[in-house]
Amino acid sequence: MRLCSFLSGGLPHLGVVRADDSVIDATALVDGRDVDLPRTLAGWVELGAGGTARLNRLSEQSGSDHIAGHVGELTLLAPMGRLPRNVICVGVNYREHIDESQRAVGEIDVPDAPVYFTKDVRSVCGPFDAIPWDERVSTQLDWEVELAVVIGKAGRNIGRSQALDHVFGYAVFNDVSARDVQLSRNQWWKGKSIERSSPLGPFIVTSDEIPDPQDLELRCWVDGEQKQRSHTGLMIHDVATLISDLSRTLTLEPGDVISTGTPAGVGLASTPQQWLRPGSLLESEITGLGRQNNHIIDTGA
Amino acid sequence: MRLCSFLSGGLPHLGVVRADDSVIDATALVDGRDVDLPRTLAGWVELGAGGTARLNRLSEQSGSDHIAGHVGELTLLAPMGRLPRNVICVGVNYREHIDESQRAVGEIDVPDAPVYFTKDVRSVCGPFDAIPWDERVSTQLDWEVELAVVIGKAGRNIGRSQALDHVFGYAVFNDVSARDVQLSRNQWWKGKSIERSSPLGPFIVTSDEIPDPQDLELRCWVDGEQKQRSHTGLMIHDVATLISDLSRTLTLEPGDVISTGTPAGVGLASTPQQWLRPGSLLESEITGLGRQNNHIIDTGA
Repeated sequence: MRLCSFLSGGLPHLGVVRADDSVIDATALVDGRDVDLPRTLAGWVELGAGGTARLNRLSEQSGSDHIAGHVGELTLLAPMGRLPRNVICVGVNYREHIDESQRAVGEIDVPDAPVYFTKDVRSVCGPFDAIPWDERVSTQLDWEVELAVVIGKAGRNIGRSQALDHVFGYAVFNDVSARDVQLSRNQWWKGKSIERSSPLGPFIVTSDEIPDPQDLELRCWVDGEQKQRSHTGLMIHDVATLISDLSRTLTLEPGDVISTGTPAGVGLASTPQQWLRPGSLLESEITGLGRQNNHIIDTGA
Repeated sequence: MRLCSFLSGGLPHLGVVRADDSVIDATALVDGRDVDLPRTLAGWVELGAGGTARLNRLSEQSGSDHIAGHVGELTLLAPMGRLPRNVICVGVNYREHIDESQRAVGEIDVPDAPVYFTKDVRSVCGPFDAIPWDERVSTQLDWEVELAVVIGKAGRNIGRSQALDHVFGYAVFNDVSARDVQLSRNQWWKGKSIERSSPLGPFIVTSDEIPDPQDLELRCWVDGEQKQRSHTGLMIHDVATLISDLSRTLTLEPGDVISTGTPAGVGLASTPQQWLRPGSLLESEITGLGRQNNHIIDTGA
């Protein structure tokens, strides 16, 4: 299933997107049955794979009166709203991105083990939201299209071979980064956590529809010009390895979002360097997971 | 007020600790009045300074039947339970700790701007909880006593002179760190986020009782031997500066916890290096904020 959150009567509703891009209002469907089931996508993620099967059956029973509209007509929101925990991000996970970063900023320490940092929950925005730009915050806002993994089943010490069983679904994420803030401090959280800078969505696609997360193409455009084009098969540490490694030190829980790193083509490494500016249009896409587009707007003026 | 969370009938209750160390069960007090007020300390933090005044009046009206017991008899929990967002930590914020770290691991990049990283919400434990040790996770568990600041009033672009108005209260925090995990990756989140490793509390002391957060003594002992003893006046970036700086890139919100860095005396910088081991007793204290003690137990055996 392709799942989304959309605005209805001022509230986030869960949408199940059908093959023809019409959207079933699953919140209304649940409300109408007065059953004890979640009203939001975040709530269904908590239920994990069992929830997916139940939601699938529920949506198959829906009629045309449950169609909220075509996906293009609705106001899509960040799929899970405010996340329960920071986005867990992976740095330096594509070889070509490491190479271009070293050309841009000099030697980078690339350990054998995955490098994790987090993005604040306040940094996440919706897939079609405007991204605020303010010269007092950053003049070096950069793009990083990434595959995001949404955990749907709790686990500690998860073996690599079982790791993908813990995935609820996948989504497009752009790990927008304020390079001036990020690189003026040797830890990255602040520069990665600009408020409402980083779009997630439009969909969370359940894992049953993505048999191999290492066989997806990622693409990113700025003002229509393709900046990034790569393939998840080129990750240094694949999704299963990341899940297994993370679960060695803490219990992964439903609702955790792991963003798996960006390939080459960021603005920092361009010659000359390029940054998102007021008026820029950022578009990010992954095979089967949809495309986001976000205008950059000057909120500081 | 000194506020705590304690276990009562299997649930966290909010305690107001009186001068004689008896604890008013403020959850029972609220329940008995059937008023629309929070039942937990986290809920009162959301209300900010207005809530503090109301809670103060409420607890002044309590009788002896609302005393849950002496603070030493109760099971104290992490004051705010599961935090709403990662702990925002500040690295390299005491000069002597920078010097000792450089002696231990070589040259450290110390920028002019504060260096932030986060600790996962799963890393926080109660002030008297056992801290799990597992050689498969880390054999280099280290201590870092720190002053934690709890935000009680939302704000963006907060001026330095108004910054302390946004503080709900202060607490002791030990930013326990798995050095082998932390230093094998150039970003610190994973090594700082070992599950249930890092005690917060015992109290949150409301800001009206701490007129100057830069005039507090911090101390930390391992097995009764004093390892750290310093003063918050020695911070490089003080509490007001940190709040102001953080609010430049995102809106601080009630419930945010900012941990302000550790002074000298950590195990990494000892000669020879010292680590917490199964059987170790870790004690951490700050003037007026109470003392925590935590036994290290082997959970991997």
